[in-house]
Amino acid sequence: MNKIALITGATGFIGGVLARSLLKNGWSVALVLRDGSDTSLIQDVLTESTMHLYDGLGETLVEIMTRVKPDVVFHLASLVLVEHETADIPSLISSNIIFGTQLLDAMVKARVGNIVLASTLWQFSGKDERQAVNLYAATKQSFEVIVDYYHDAFGISAISLILADTYGVGDKRPKLINFLIRSLGSPTELSMSPGDQIVDISHVQDVANSFELAALKLYESSEAVRLSRAVCGTRLTVKQLVAAVEKNGKGKINAVFGGRPYRTREILCPAKLPELEPDWKKVDLDEGIQELIKASLQADL
Amino acid sequence: MNKIALITGATGFIGGVLARSLLKNGWSVALVLRDGSDTSLIQDVLTESTMHLYDGLGETLVEIMTRVKPDVVFHLASLVLVEHETADIPSLISSNIIFGTQLLDAMVKARVGNIVLASTLWQFSGKDERQAVNLYAATKQSFEVIVDYYHDAFGISAISLILADTYGVGDKRPKLINFLIRSLGSPTELSMSPGDQIVDISHVQDVANSFELAALKLYESSEAVRLSRAVCGTRLTVKQLVAAVEKNGKGKINAVFGGRPYRTREILCPAKLPELEPDWKKVDLDEGIQELIKASLQADL
Repeated sequence: MNKIALITGATGFIGGVLARSLLKNGWSVALVLRDGSDTSLIQDVLTESTMHLYDGLGETLVEIMTRVKPDVVFHLASLVLVEHETADIPSLISSNIIFGTQLLDAMVKARVGNIVLASTLWQFSGKDERQAVNLYAATKQSFEVIVDYYHDAFGISAISLILADTYGVGDKRPKLINFLIRSLGSPTELSMSPGDQIVDISHVQDVANSFELAALKLYESSEAVRLSRAVCGTRLTVKQLVAAVEKNGKGKINAVFGGRPYRTREILCPAKLPELEPDWKKVDLDEGIQELIKASLQADL
Repeated sequence: MNKIALITGATGFIGGVLARSLLKNGWSVALVLRDGSDTSLIQDVLTESTMHLYDGLGETLVEIMTRVKPDVVFHLASLVLVEHETADIPSLISSNIIFGTQLLDAMVKARVGNIVLASTLWQFSGKDERQAVNLYAATKQSFEVIVDYYHDAFGISAISLILADTYGVGDKRPKLINFLIRSLGSPTELSMSPGDQIVDISHVQDVANSFELAALKLYESSEAVRLSRAVCGTRLTVKQLVAAVEKNGKGKINAVFGGRPYRTREILCPAKLPELEPDWKKVDLDEGIQELIKASLQADL
């Protein structure tokens, strides 16, 4: 029997890669999508999965959960805002707390026991302290308290995977690594921060594998589990990342370090948090960069 | 110059007593009320305070906060649900997280620095661990993470006052102590839990005084403050509370202990948490009970 996954946030970059990866590994996949979600990037996934529309009502999630009866829920849906305006507060909390709480509630009602959820390293600024970088991260951290409650009161098994920076082919998010690759060989100045901050960057396939690994841990456990575990990739400074792209791209980037200041509450040295599986072989950053460059050249043809 | 208080939740029992108490002690009081709030119990307060309507928009709170410019915000508004249904989740999170976040955001925008907020002992079941008794308590605990963020990122000074059980004349909430007083001398059986759980019960005036005391601490501090402090009253078992009402009322209560089970996740021994001011003289429980009995007799006339 195939294991059944229910995924939220599959229209996002990581969610889409995760859905494909689970399908390839023999899982049956059900997607929970908001009405009006842009599914253009996951047309291939939709042909192999079932699709379930969330209309904002918890009762709808109870119905979906009861119908799908997943072995594991993968909760990646989130509203990410680096900075917020006053008017963003309700939608930020609705996306990052209300929806997740309704999901947990539906799991209890449908007797579904396992959930893997995406957290962010932005919840852990200040070495290993739980300091949120921005309101987005604070809402994510705030939701962890609700997860603790559902674990404690109803025996829900949950692993929060703390994601740092991620990359991979097909990523449409405005990520530094993609700007760097597009700037290879260009004379245009790329105005950057001072560049001494350390980033922790993971290939998206490693992230997807981490989600599946966490899910299997929950699936195989005879007891209720509650863990927060980091997905760690390559740690290097932004200056070193620029050098790595130049080396692999055999070209120069006209980077102006210090051309703009660090972000407010920028994490200069990310906390080192416990990993799910420390000695696991991951995609080498040089290989990952070459893969990105190759894809970028093909896109230009 | 009078100090200026902005109060949310003044239509509730504790909020109303706090508003009266602050007015008596010379504060100027501004109330933030939801459109359609029942103000029948605070008509006396309304004549001496300014009233500001919250329509759900953060922008409205920014305007109110800028106009009132309070020295201290007293945030007592909350949706309390002992048990929740699926359909309650959005309003629970909206009342207990979104509104509070908008309030903090408005404080930042209006450069208002101090807030005292009501927490609940229900966030601290399991000795001193942060285990929520129910989803209501989990949402309150979840909001504390947002408060931590606003303290850390914007220097907001905040004291969370952890309230246990409270009582006082005029309380319309369905509280055990009022049921007991109404049952004095009645032959009707009062079906109760086994009654060995410990409660921690405070007179509402002590609670109001704690809020003012916390506010003054914030007002007088030269540094940003972030504290969680318990408001402790008399600790006794429910059986002892029944005996205390019988003693002070000089009558019997036909209590059937064990006639109903303990509540789900009932706290049998509340955590002892650090107090704001440990050696403070408080209303004696016997005197408080006599006051309640007297008021109950007058109401019957």
